[in-house]
Amino acid sequence: MDTSVANNPHDRLSLTLAEDLLAVNTLIRERMSSEHAPRIPEVTAHLVEAGGKRLRPMLTLATARLCGYEGPYHVHLAATVEFIHTATLLHDDVVDESRQRRGRPTANLLWDNKSSVLVGDYLFARSFQLMVETGSLRVLDILSNAAATIAEGEVLQLTAAQNLATDESIYLKVVRGKTAALFSAATEVGGVIAGAPEAQVKALFDYGDALGIAFQIADDLLDYSGDAKATGKNVGDDFRERKLTLPVIKAVAQATPEERKFWERTIEKGHQNEDDLETALTIMAKYGTLEATRADATAWADKARAALALVPADPIRDMLEDLLDYVVSRIS
Amino acid sequence: MDTSVANNPHDRLSLTLAEDLLAVNTLIRERMSSEHAPRIPEVTAHLVEAGGKRLRPMLTLATARLCGYEGPYHVHLAATVEFIHTATLLHDDVVDESRQRRGRPTANLLWDNKSSVLVGDYLFARSFQLMVETGSLRVLDILSNAAATIAEGEVLQLTAAQNLATDESIYLKVVRGKTAALFSAATEVGGVIAGAPEAQVKALFDYGDALGIAFQIADDLLDYSGDAKATGKNVGDDFRERKLTLPVIKAVAQATPEERKFWERTIEKGHQNEDDLETALTIMAKYGTLEATRADATAWADKARAALALVPADPIRDMLEDLLDYVVSRIS
Repeated sequence: MDTSVANNPHDRLSLTLAEDLLAVNTLIRERMSSEHAPRIPEVTAHLVEAGGKRLRPMLTLATARLCGYEGPYHVHLAATVEFIHTATLLHDDVVDESRQRRGRPTANLLWDNKSSVLVGDYLFARSFQLMVETGSLRVLDILSNAAATIAEGEVLQLTAAQNLATDESIYLKVVRGKTAALFSAATEVGGVIAGAPEAQVKALFDYGDALGIAFQIADDLLDYSGDAKATGKNVGDDFRERKLTLPVIKAVAQATPEERKFWERTIEKGHQNEDDLETALTIMAKYGTLEATRADATAWADKARAALALVPADPIRDMLEDLLDYVVSRIS
Repeated sequence: MDTSVANNPHDRLSLTLAEDLLAVNTLIRERMSSEHAPRIPEVTAHLVEAGGKRLRPMLTLATARLCGYEGPYHVHLAATVEFIHTATLLHDDVVDESRQRRGRPTANLLWDNKSSVLVGDYLFARSFQLMVETGSLRVLDILSNAAATIAEGEVLQLTAAQNLATDESIYLKVVRGKTAALFSAATEVGGVIAGAPEAQVKALFDYGDALGIAFQIADDLLDYSGDAKATGKNVGDDFRERKLTLPVIKAVAQATPEERKFWERTIEKGHQNEDDLETALTIMAKYGTLEATRADATAWADKARAALALVPADPIRDMLEDLLDYVVSRIS
């Protein structure tokens, strides 16, 4: 297959895994159906077919192939990972009262919160059915742990948000929960289903963990430095929503008493004026927190690269490595 | 153990299973904790320790013991069933915008909808971790199927509510989903974990299924005929919330054109006046739908009794049979 025509590592992986991805899409469409409740596939299709990047299921397919897997169950696991991700998005949009996702109105807006909660539950249950079909208790163990860690991270974010005491270690716990846990589970189960040696499984876990953290840090950085056209986000959305992300946490840690009052007013109390975003950016520039955040993302990408070096050479390994450059290149 | 002092079958079962129930409570308290997010045990404790009847976990303990189980995993499965039930209640209260449960303010009122959604997700993930520990893929299969059926039933209820086209067969699907699926899974896994013969496992499933349906029909009947002091519900809550339950469905099926207009106005459109509940009760009395509903509950209890007869005689079997009389006695 000629993958040299693809522009970026994500597309090259998609081309390489095209057949597997097709099987995943077929399985997803089959399993999101419901004999009794047509509302379920309506809501799910809105999200699953909205052109998400399928990054997480692709990680499972890629790592299974990389470890020489020839069986059918990496497809089940990739669909599992996408269902867990979709269920999380449905519940997140209820929790965040979001109105847009991937440039379209959210399900909670098009239908209602009730449908988002219950269809999320349905997909979550369906994901466990898919795992049971693989017959691997270890896979069930990994993914049920990941699901618990995701929910825990989200609850922690709920209580840590808008609280200036949230430091980098709490931020990391939240990011590991809400983002990295599913990335690392996705890469780990790819190795497990292929029966890879423990050292490789561990390396794949570490790769997914560090990739997920780099990915989320880059996302949080883009919110303050990105090109709205390229990212689909407006600069400062997180500030307006009073989310304590890494660029702000680094500025709060070094704040003068006056700056601290500014953060207390805008983030903790949520009293924001029109020019407050400008002031926030000025304070962050003073301490170079955007550069420091960028350096953190790069450092996590380097950790992921180091983990990958423990896996035997393979064209797919190269693509997974290129994916790291791609994640970091968005912010450099 | 002297169980003759207990007043009702539920209490007799509690006494007989006291040691197991203690182990279940200890395991629940241990597993609802969270190192990183203290909000989780707060919300869970509010519900788990609010004096629920622990009926579902008791069914798992009882059926496992009845089949001669001597191992430790019926305790894990009972805790699993209670966690799934609790997660469902948390999400239900968000969906129904409920303000009271078991005579106390709901978690979504005390904290917020976000906490109820995310803590529900956490308990659901925790329940799968507990199942994985049993090492039984069959148990995981049964309970992940039940979880999907529960969510499906709730979504179906969402779209069937306030729609006069909802007939008895749709009502039965909803009830099988939202209530009976967890009852039948609870009794089935008790037999499975004990390694009981297939015919017994099937009988235990049938018992749980019919018990769950009788239980829900009785609950829906009590809403129109119960003693508010004894049930903790006000007569007519379902009518005011425009819920199409069996007593109304039976009346709609026989309605004159004028009565149909009444149901369209009060249930479909939700335009209710002060004396509409009285009128609804009069129409239901005209067709004897409360008596017919009571007869349906009794018929399901009889089916459950017939299923139980296929299980070898045992004091616990007698208690499970008495439980049927108890469920039906509430409405006769």
